[in-house]
Amino acid sequence: MPAPAMSADEIAKLLEKEFPQAFFPGCGLTLERIDYGDVRVRRAYHEDHLRPGGTISGPTMMELADFAMYVAVFSAIGPEPLAVTTNLTINFLRKPAPADLIAHARLMKVGKRLAVGEVNIYSTSMDEPVAHVTSTYSIPDR
Amino acid sequence: MPAPAMSADEIAKLLEKEFPQAFFPGCGLTLERIDYGDVRVRRAYHEDHLRPGGTISGPTMMELADFAMYVAVFSAIGPEPLAVTTNLTINFLRKPAPADLIAHARLMKVGKRLAVGEVNIYSTSMDEPVAHVTSTYSIPDR
Amino acid sequence: MPAPAMSADEIAKLLEKEFPQAFFPGCGLTLERIDYGDVRVRRAYHEDHLRPGGTISGPTMMELADFAMYVAVFSAIGPEPLAVTTNLTINFLRKPAPADLIAHARLMKVGKRLAVGEVNIYSTSMDEPVAHVTSTYSIPDR
Amino acid sequence: MPAPAMSADEIAKLLEKEFPQAFFPGCGLTLERIDYGDVRVRRAYHEDHLRPGGTISGPTMMELADFAMYVAVFSAIGPEPLAVTTNLTINFLRKPAPADLIAHARLMKVGKRLAVGEVNIYSTSMDEPVAHVTSTYSIPDR
Repeated sequence: MPAPAMSADEIAKLLEKEFPQAFFPGCGLTLERIDYGDVRVRRAYHEDHLRPGGTISGPTMMELADFAMYVAVFSAIGPEPLAVTTNLTINFLRKPAPADLIAHARLMKVGKRLAVGEVNIYSTSMDEPVAHVTSTYSIPDR
Repeated sequence: MPAPAMSADEIAKLLEKEFPQAFFPGCGLTLERIDYGDVRVRRAYHEDHLRPGGTISGPTMMELADFAMYVAVFSAIGPEPLAVTTNLTINFLRKPAPADLIAHARLMKVGKRLAVGEVNIYSTSMDEPVAHVTSTYSIPDR
Repeated sequence: MPAPAMSADEIAKLLEKEFPQAFFPGCGLTLERIDYGDVRVRRAYHEDHLRPGGTISGPTMMELADFAMYVAVFSAIGPEPLAVTTNLTINFLRKPAPADLIAHARLMKVGKRLAVGEVNIYSTSMDEPVAHVTSTYSIPDR
Repeated sequence: MPAPAMSADEIAKLLEKEFPQAFFPGCGLTLERIDYGDVRVRRAYHEDHLRPGGTISGPTMMELADFAMYVAVFSAIGPEPLAVTTNLTINFLRKPAPADLIAHARLMKVGKRLAVGEVNIYSTSMDEPVAHVTSTYSIPDR
């Protein structure tokens, strides 16, 4: 496996500068591990994430998955903040209790135009994944 | 087409009570039209929705689509706040400029266990849709 | 709406030459209507399409949807047999009885690199659609 | 991991009886390994699988993935030939050369109503997967 194109610190600095709406001090997102095309991101629990039934909402998981894919793309191709999602499919598997979420994103293909990956989302409250995502990012011409 | 199972006012009251994290005074979401299994929801623009490049972020559109599907399910089967998304697929078609978004959700099937629908998302800044979503909700046993 | 880039006859000739595994005399597929990015294709019923329960199988519908998208791509960008599907999502809505299937494919976006469309599949045995598909084709550099 | 609900031989006999359109002597499909909710199926290469460009067609891979999921469902819940796919998403990753395909299906959730799984499809001609699938089966009431 090649070395990651950017370290966790470099990606965090890029995000703070280019995407301050999503990544800012106190936002609750942490880059826990960065390998080449294979990253782990944590989302700290906040009560705003709850939905009826007292579990964490779907959009909270979708946003985390999309963010983890974005970080995985940087880990493989370097700083390309204008990379954009072209599609995303999520399957909700289990209802996450109020607790932190962990997203493990892994690129299955890094092409010239497209990067395709999958994300398994875990709750720190249970062993099995709570959601599974596949997603494609379009890579700008360079 | 049958009459909707709930009016816009009834759905808004249900959401305020059961889902205050997503629907509250000033949240920026408006139920614009409610027919049976066919609804239109508006999301007022806010600068927090922006992503690098100055367009509206994917998670903003995913959240709106999921919300519009939830409202469409109520319009067809009545008050079931514990209905949950089982999957969602989004295709991003065009980059929405900073402006309000409109989601038009339409159920393609209302079964005993599952409701399946599609959502077209429009930006008030352009004519053609900015995203297309299909999604399935699981309906609790009654 | 612009005129289609190829007529039904031109597309049929291209398919017979380039894709004889799928399109040949007696294959059961008919190009019924070709507009720009908007086509209708028929698949004649054959008992090989049945699955347990006596309804038409999922793969029969997936193959038809993919074929209809391929034809829709030709109708918009002209002869590009090396255009390839990058992803496809199908939702099965109703079980089609043994009868012909009609696929109505419509491109939602025709970009330089990608074409995104949706396909509604109908059975001639019922009014409402039996399946809904969204799919993306990658367009080769020209 | 529990033992599989059916052995490879039991599943093969069920398929020959209930789904002779897909599984019959000489059909080219082999059940290579059956664990609980985790199966491997091989599709022997046939020139009818080719598409323009000389690679294996998308519908060939979609059919194999759907078949592998069906077998995985049997391995977990036993003989339920009326289990039906409710949705399927496929991402095509690489173009498979003319060679056998291997599908590795793994259930991520086995619920009372729904089973959700993923399938990685490999070509015997290359190391990395050629396609990735997620799919949901609906389980009949028992």
